[in-house]
This record gives sequence, C-alpha cells and structure tokens, in this order.
Amino acid sequence: MNSHRDKEQFMSSDTTRDAGLKILKTIEATDTPSIIASLRDVAPDLADLAISFAYGQVYARPGLTLLQRQMATVAMLAAVGGLEPQLKFHLRGALNVGASAAQLVEVMTHLVVYAGFPAALNGVAALRDILQPA
Amino acid sequence: MNSHRDKEQFMSSDTTRDAGLKILKTIEATDTPSIIASLRDVAPDLADLAISFAYGQVYARPGLTLLQRQMATVAMLAAVGGLEPQLKFHLRGALNVGASAAQLVEVMTHLVVYAGFPAALNGVAALRDILQPA
Amino acid sequence: MNSHRDKEQFMSSDTTRDAGLKILKTIEATDTPSIIASLRDVAPDLADLAISFAYGQVYARPGLTLLQRQMATVAMLAAVGGLEPQLKFHLRGALNVGASAAQLVEVMTHLVVYAGFPAALNGVAALRDILQPA
Amino acid sequence: MNSHRDKEQFMSSDTTRDAGLKILKTIEATDTPSIIASLRDVAPDLADLAISFAYGQVYARPGLTLLQRQMATVAMLAAVGGLEPQLKFHLRGALNVGASAAQLVEVMTHLVVYAGFPAALNGVAALRDILQPA
Amino acid sequence: MNSHRDKEQFMSSDTTRDAGLKILKTIEATDTPSIIASLRDVAPDLADLAISFAYGQVYARPGLTLLQRQMATVAMLAAVGGLEPQLKFHLRGALNVGASAAQLVEVMTHLVVYAGFPAALNGVAALRDILQPA
Amino acid sequence: MNSHRDKEQFMSSDTTRDAGLKILKTIEATDTPSIIASLRDVAPDLADLAISFAYGQVYARPGLTLLQRQMATVAMLAAVGGLEPQLKFHLRGALNVGASAAQLVEVMTHLVVYAGFPAALNGVAALRDILQPA
Repeated sequence: MNSHRDKEQFMSSDTTRDAGLKILKTIEATDTPSIIASLRDVAPDLADLAISFAYGQVYARPGLTLLQRQMATVAMLAAVGGLEPQLKFHLRGALNVGASAAQLVEVMTHLVVYAGFPAALNGVAALRDILQPA
Repeated sequence: MNSHRDKEQFMSSDTTRDAGLKILKTIEATDTPSIIASLRDVAPDLADLAISFAYGQVYARPGLTLLQRQMATVAMLAAVGGLEPQLKFHLRGALNVGASAAQLVEVMTHLVVYAGFPAALNGVAALRDILQPA
Repeated sequence: MNSHRDKEQFMSSDTTRDAGLKILKTIEATDTPSIIASLRDVAPDLADLAISFAYGQVYARPGLTLLQRQMATVAMLAAVGGLEPQLKFHLRGALNVGASAAQLVEVMTHLVVYAGFPAALNGVAALRDILQPA
Repeated sequence: MNSHRDKEQFMSSDTTRDAGLKILKTIEATDTPSIIASLRDVAPDLADLAISFAYGQVYARPGLTLLQRQMATVAMLAAVGGLEPQLKFHLRGALNVGASAAQLVEVMTHLVVYAGFPAALNGVAALRDILQPA
Repeated sequence: MNSHRDKEQFMSSDTTRDAGLKILKTIEATDTPSIIASLRDVAPDLADLAISFAYGQVYARPGLTLLQRQMATVAMLAAVGGLEPQLKFHLRGALNVGASAAQLVEVMTHLVVYAGFPAALNGVAALRDILQPA
Repeated sequence: MNSHRDKEQFMSSDTTRDAGLKILKTIEATDTPSIIASLRDVAPDLADLAISFAYGQVYARPGLTLLQRQMATVAMLAAVGGLEPQLKFHLRGALNVGASAAQLVEVMTHLVVYAGFPAALNGVAALRDILQPA
C-alpha cells in the first residue's frame, strides 16, 4: 500500500470535509458556498458528498494545481454539454484561481476540434454570461 | 477586425498546412503522421482537414501551450466517452509534449467528479494500454 | 414463436392504444394527457406513437412494475442529461405510481457514482421544481 | 383526427409487422434479417418490436424516402457515437438503398462541424470496415 | 494527391471565407449572419473559423446538396441533444434551403427509433418554436 | 444538520472503506474484488475511491435496496452507452443481488423508449455475453 493511501485512509472525515470546504471557498471566492444553500431543502447530503468527496478527496489530491483542475473541469463540462449551471460555476471558478478570460475562450475554440462547433458556441455563450452579465 | 484575424485570413493554405503538419508531428512524435496513411484510401480529404484546420488553424493559435491543449483534449475525450482510439492517440501525445503519466492518471481521477467512475475507469484503461502495452 | 409474441401480434392497434392511454393516464395522474395537446398542431402522429408504442407496447409488458419502470426511467433520463422536460414529467410520474420523494433524491445521489456530480445536481434541480413549485 | 392516424390505428398488427419485415429485408438486402437470429435466445420480443415498430410503424411512414431515412440514420448514429454495430448495419443499409460510398464519406466529413473530428474519424473507420473488409 | 485537395490547398483563405460567407447567408437567409454579431465581443475568431472552415471548407464541398447537409445537420443535432440554439438555427436553415415543415417533423419522428422519444419530443419543441413563434 | 450527516461525518475512513468493501464483495460475489487488481499498477488510489466513496458512502446509504441500486445502475449505464465493461460488471452484480435475467431483458426493452433501439440492442448484447459466455 502506498503512502498516499495510508494518509487518506486514516484522515478523519472531519479533516476531509474541512479541506474540501476550504478548496470550494477558494474556487467560488466566497465564505458561503452556494451549493449548501441550494441543496439544503431537497438533498442536503449531496452537498456534503460534494464537499467531502469532490473537493475534500479529489480536488485536495496533489498532482494537478487548482488552475489545472479548473481548466480540465471546464473542458470536460463544455465537451459533454447540457450542463450549463455547472459550466458557469466552474468558468467563474477558473477565473477565481487564475485563468484569464482569453484562456477560457481558447479552451472553447480548442473544443471545436473535439466536440464540434455547437458545443463550442454554447461554451462561449456560458462564458459571455459570466463576463458580461446582462 | 483584429490583427490575429488579419494574419489568419491572408495566410496561404500551404502555410497553414505546413504549420499543422509540424504540430501534428510533434504531438505524435513521428515524421509520418498515422492519420495520413489511415485515411488515404477512404477519406483522404478528412486527413487534410485535420492537418490544416485542427492542427494548422486551432492548435497553432496562441493562448494555450501544446501541453495545455493536450491536457484539455484528454479531459474532453475521456469525459465524452466512446472515443478510445482518439483518447489513446492524445494520451500518447500528451506524454510526447511533456505531461507525466502521474498527471494523466490525475486527470482521470478528477474525471470521477464530473463524469462518474465508469468514464474514469475507461480513461485509466486507455492509459494503461499505452503505458504497459501487452 | 413464443406465446407473448403471438398475443402481441394479433392484438388490434385499438386495444394497444387503449392500453397505452390507460397507463399514461395513471402515470400522469390525469384524464387528459398533456402530450396529446402539446403535439396536436405540429406532430400529432408522434403523440399516437408515444401512446400506442411507448405506453401500449412497452410499458404494458409484464416483467417490471410501473414503479420499477418509472424508477428506471428517471435514472436513464437523469444520466443522459439535457432532457429536463421529460425528466420532470417522469419524476412526477414516479411520485404518482408510488415512489417517495426520498427515493427519488436517492436515485440522484446514486447517479453521482455513474454520471458525476453535475448530472446529479441537475437531477435534484428538476426534482426541486416539482416538489417546491415557485 | 387526421387520415394518416385513422389508417395506422386500424391497421392490424400483422400488416404492420409484414410491412416492417419487407422494409428491413430491403435495407439489409437479405431474406433472413440478422436481428431475428441474434435476439432469438435472449430477447426475441425486442426483435419483434424493432420489426413492427421501428420498421413497420416509423420507416413505413410517408414523408421521407428510404434513402433519406438511411442518410439521417447514419448521421444520427455517427454523431451520438459508441454505436458501431448499428452504424455499420445502417451504413450497409444506406448503400443497399442507393447511397454512394462517396456520399457516406461526405456525411462523415460534414459531421466534423457538428460533433468534432473524433466522431468523424470513428464514422470513417466504420465505413472502411464495410467497404474494405479485412 | 487528388485534384480536389490540390485545389483546396492553393485556394487563398480570402476565397475560402467568401465562399463560406455566401453559403452561410443562404442558410440563414440574411445578408448579416447573426454569428458575427453574437461572437464579436467575446470570441470573434470563432466566428471566423465557423465561416471559413465550417461553411467555407466543409459545406462548400461537393457530394451533398445544401438541403442534404441541412437534413443531416438537424438529424445530428437533435440526436445528440442539449444543443437547442443550434438546432433551431439549422431547422430554420433547412426550411430556407428547401425542406418542408413536414419533412422536418418526419426527421424527428424517425429519431424516435435511434435516440428515443425524449430527444424526438425536444426536437419537435424546437421546431414548434420556429413554426409558431410566441 | 440531520442525523444521517452527523453519523457520516464522524465515521472514520476505515469504517467507510470496510463498509464499501463488504458491499462490493456482495455485488461482485467474490472475496477478491477485480477492481483492486486491475487498478493496482496504474491508478491504485482510484480503486480506493471507488471502494470508500462509491460503495462505502453512496451504496451504503439507506433509501434504496441493493437490488434497486443495481437496477438503476444498469439503466443508467445502458442509457449513456459506450460503457460496456462497467455495464457487464453491473449486470452480473444485478443478478448477484437478486435480479432475474428476465428483469434485465425488460430494462433493456424499456430503454428503447428513452434512448432508442441501438442503446437497447447494445444492452442486450452485453447481457447475452454474461448469460451465454462463448
């Protein structure tokens, strides 16, 4: 068993949640992450899993910087399509951890090659909503 | 009209194709890109479009490094799924332009959050085929 | 040829349509299924095919209960994504044939494993719209 | 209620199945459609539904020629991706009802714009397997 | 190297752009294509790539008529799903190059077989928005 | 904060992993889950995340039975498509926790309505491989 797994296995869930919350706050650039309020009534456990697993166990891993993770995230979400709320959240998150608007436009232009023009145009529309709120 | 577009518009197609071919050779780490031979009989024009457009007009753009483009590409392909031949090609390409195997494993682990475990497991299977050819 | 197929083959289309209409009315909990009105002007035949085939020939089959079919349906629709109108219709339908809100939240939480957090979050958003109409 | 629906509604299931079988035989250019044998053991009813519904109730409709339906089918299957067995079946079917190999290559080239290069390359690979069996 | 590729390779980018613009104007039935204005602020180069590559290098190819290309396009977009803005644009485009409303309804009905009822219903909803603007 | 979350939050990671391993062994009907060996060389942490999160934190939740979870899982995987290795694993898992072969055939037949015939046929093909290994 390698050392990373040992560490993870014996880390308490509280520590994992705290680590996740800290990363989420950095990405959303807020002290009150929106996912907690938006899921409170219908699916509060899902917010907990997002914080402790997605942010606390995956984002917290070494190997990629937060910026690299956000760039990969927007690439994935825009390529899959139909995930506008999450795409906008993570485009904002990418800007919050150091991406430039020009780099995000470039990810969408790159997307043309791998997922076609419609996915790229919808990605740019999501980006425009963030950069130029009506 | 901005300067980038002026440049692109008046660049001859030959120059665009040469630029694309050079980038493709770097990504595939070969002097004889496989796409030309594989499409020669059935769809030779598609190879030309890949070289002149995908590599010559998109990859050749400034704003993202080749390594950033390859990381975004493997993220997109693994997230969409069902594109194993292209995923393997670009995982190799990512290694050829400076990604480490550990970084590529990390992209697949990150993928769990956004596309679920099955897509991540198939991404790792593609990566294993490249790192440990049977 | 097995007995089920014999039966189906000689069942008149009228019987099939009536069977389908009855099931659709149960799922939508209405005597005037919305699909008929919504397709009347542009694609009336598509409503007929939905009733006679989807409900009359598939849902009417033995082997799964209506509740099992609705649980499978919401799992499929939420996993594929981008099908919000149909997802909401069938979440309501699942409640109408006996699913609890808690079970539907649990299907969306389960979805995290197989399609990732964004699909699960959009599934929960669709469910919230039904449970807590604005 | 329009005349088309009246006709469809009162057509006996046998007639529908016969009409479907005739169309399927034309598309597959055989008197013994492969779907019947391939599903006999595990899911014989699914073959019946394919014949009576897909071919007997949808393909049999007026409004599009068989060639137009096959062209739309290969466009849909190649764009969605991950459906190689069905894509190959319908590429052969398209050739059987009058499409040229060049037209099918052109559909795949057109696909680049709407679903990207990987989907188009996989579509061409499916087509090459049909045109140049190993 | 075949004659088509020779021609394409030495065609100047200006000619390619002009050819693309002419085709786009025909499809959108306007002298001022909307994509140029909608991308001007955030991603002007993406509009250029759409015009010069998608329309100038792909649509301009022989082998399929503009009507055949638009029919394939709406089939692809409706089958993939989640691409409503582009689907509506190209449904209008199909009408502009000679498709009838009935043919477009029929493509959506055909879609039921290959992508299921939800995708077909969303395709019809997009079509209704065009034929019967609120 | 509800009681379920309190419990989860303070459960040690070891307990979570043990709970996940037990569920995975039940689903795969083995004492040596294949995912551990298959990921050992390239992505051992991904196996840990699957066990501790997917099985230990999601499957272990109350609200749905193991059989309901497996039925939802095969519905999701077959609907998304292109995930054959995982679909086969979970079809076997569904049989291991009490589903009948007939119920699984019925899920695939139901899938025709929501994802079309190609996805259903590929689902049946995966099922045939399990029921009738060559």
